[in-house]
Amino acid sequence: MLVDGVPSRTIAAGGGAVEILDQSVLPHRIERRTLTTLGDAARAIASMQVRGAPLIGVTAAYGLALAAGTDPSDDGLRAAADLLARTRPTAVNLRWALDRMLAWLLPEPVAARGPTAWRLAGELAEADVESCRAIGRHGLALLEALGGSRGGSLSVLTHCNAGWLAAVDRGTALAPVYAAAERPGRADDVHVWVSETRPRNQGLLTAWELGQQGVPHTLVADNAAGHLIRRGLVDAVLVGADRIAANGDAANKIGTYLKALACADAGVPFYVLAPLSTVDPACPDGDAIPIEERDGDELRIVHGTRADGAPASVRLVDAGTAVGNPAFDVTPARLVTALVTDVGTAPATADGVARLLAGG
Amino acid sequence: MLVDGVPSRTIAAGGGAVEILDQSVLPHRIERRTLTTLGDAARAIASMQVRGAPLIGVTAAYGLALAAGTDPSDDGLRAAADLLARTRPTAVNLRWALDRMLAWLLPEPVAARGPTAWRLAGELAEADVESCRAIGRHGLALLEALGGSRGGSLSVLTHCNAGWLAAVDRGTALAPVYAAAERPGRADDVHVWVSETRPRNQGLLTAWELGQQGVPHTLVADNAAGHLIRRGLVDAVLVGADRIAANGDAANKIGTYLKALACADAGVPFYVLAPLSTVDPACPDGDAIPIEERDGDELRIVHGTRADGAPASVRLVDAGTAVGNPAFDVTPARLVTALVTDVGTAPATADGVARLLAGG
Repeated sequence: MLVDGVPSRTIAAGGGAVEILDQSVLPHRIERRTLTTLGDAARAIASMQVRGAPLIGVTAAYGLALAAGTDPSDDGLRAAADLLARTRPTAVNLRWALDRMLAWLLPEPVAARGPTAWRLAGELAEADVESCRAIGRHGLALLEALGGSRGGSLSVLTHCNAGWLAAVDRGTALAPVYAAAERPGRADDVHVWVSETRPRNQGLLTAWELGQQGVPHTLVADNAAGHLIRRGLVDAVLVGADRIAANGDAANKIGTYLKALACADAGVPFYVLAPLSTVDPACPDGDAIPIEERDGDELRIVHGTRADGAPASVRLVDAGTAVGNPAFDVTPARLVTALVTDVGTAPATADGVARLLAGG
Repeated sequence: MLVDGVPSRTIAAGGGAVEILDQSVLPHRIERRTLTTLGDAARAIASMQVRGAPLIGVTAAYGLALAAGTDPSDDGLRAAADLLARTRPTAVNLRWALDRMLAWLLPEPVAARGPTAWRLAGELAEADVESCRAIGRHGLALLEALGGSRGGSLSVLTHCNAGWLAAVDRGTALAPVYAAAERPGRADDVHVWVSETRPRNQGLLTAWELGQQGVPHTLVADNAAGHLIRRGLVDAVLVGADRIAANGDAANKIGTYLKALACADAGVPFYVLAPLSTVDPACPDGDAIPIEERDGDELRIVHGTRADGAPASVRLVDAGTAVGNPAFDVTPARLVTALVTDVGTAPATADGVARLLAGG
């Protein structure tokens, strides 16, 4: 997608190093960072310089490639995968990408593992782009079937960032939005309500990337979603997922469940859009999904810019104020209108998930 | 309630002036302001130096007393009431207090109106304190009947600030919490989950006032409420109201409706606590309640403190980013477990509201 008009990706590799767009300082600064070690990759994931389930998976794959440059032995790669897997507990794509890389690499001769790891990580990145394109096609078909309440013009609401910043390109929840905006002559026929997504304000990432692509959007407080949905201002809610259980329950950014409740109350479709790698068939339901509790300072301290544009932070409450900071919640399958994946669309039921896993 | 250990009220009058605790700078600074003119009072309400439906009503009453010192004629008082009524559209207590003051003052001789207005405004303030005490008693009875899921210890969740800062003393939604904490030897048997309440972060006011009274509490992002309620960590949700319609629908701070949905989904009680003056019998249902749309900069700019404690702000998005900022939403009566007022408790139905209006 575009950054200042230049086609860009969130992650790229070359010359034995990985370059990322540092999302911990976006949208206030556009900075790229170079990862040259396994530790760099693990820190980039844990500190959310890269974030979003698909991108975390791809970054972890590149992390294994970086590790293979130092110690391509079985023990070395397994230890590297363990380190990377521990960086974030909820997104299953992380574990999926690591398992896939190990399954490919361990049968290889040790000497060949380094170059192979780079090639395989690159293939995972390309596959993610194609997967997001497919999600966009399937999602757009659903949106077009809705018709739109404003003369064919669609207004959707999204939470957190499941756009191209959460993937390598195109995004998951926003992929249908970009597909809609790319229809000839209809760039303005889609509008996105962007939920701020406290405490880390990933909605600002969404507003930024939509702005970079010229897609009309309006930023709102997380609290506003129910009001907008109830007043008929939202045609559909589109969200990503960090893990989808075998029964169709979906873990996603904290606050997603509240939007699903509002959709159910108002009869508005609520779609979960994610690559098939987000489905965890070993996880029976949402109660089995570990929910990451993050540092309370994410809530206590807000990052932005000063009047002169320089990065700055303010403290909302002192360090002694007790803070709860669960990073995800679980939306029960009964509130999900459909799961939209790269292999197709299915109801959020055990049968629907099984059909997707069988190839859509 | 206590501020730095000293019993305090949000508003007090004396010597022809009104002193308020400036809530637009709390909790980062404790500053009192003196209102000496009608314009001062109107600005204090519009700029949210005072906020909360009951306190807005009392401040408006004092605003009329200030106006009566300059022009106590019929036209003068009516014009002053119109100016004050236009400051905030949603809270009905504002109109209620002004109507009551005018009904009392206009039959008086013009020369007597100034002193009478001060006395009547003072009586409204005292009545608000008693009203909040009564809400506390009725609410505590409901909470004690719940039993509490943790060996008699209660954990409630509140949104925005409907504590003593929203009234003259004691508060509305928090009145039962203070009553619970004052039970001999049981100060720690109640805990409050405090919802941050973007965009203006009135949850920080709630955390501050609970901290000043020594009541255990935990601050969370607005997004976290659904997760906490669904996981059984909340025994009841207690919120205030800015207007209650004749059918039991309740307007309150944006985001309240989402919490009510989560309560209904999990079978957790959702109580709306407010003085009877918040009921608007002329308003048939929630659709008839005007919803204030406030300046988008409330979302774009966040106020807090620098590391050295000095007040500071950061900008989240530039002025060109479109922002939606509805300040209230409507919770349909079907999601309200009970209305808790100074005259008693009733179901959120037309019959229940009528019974309350008839005296409980």
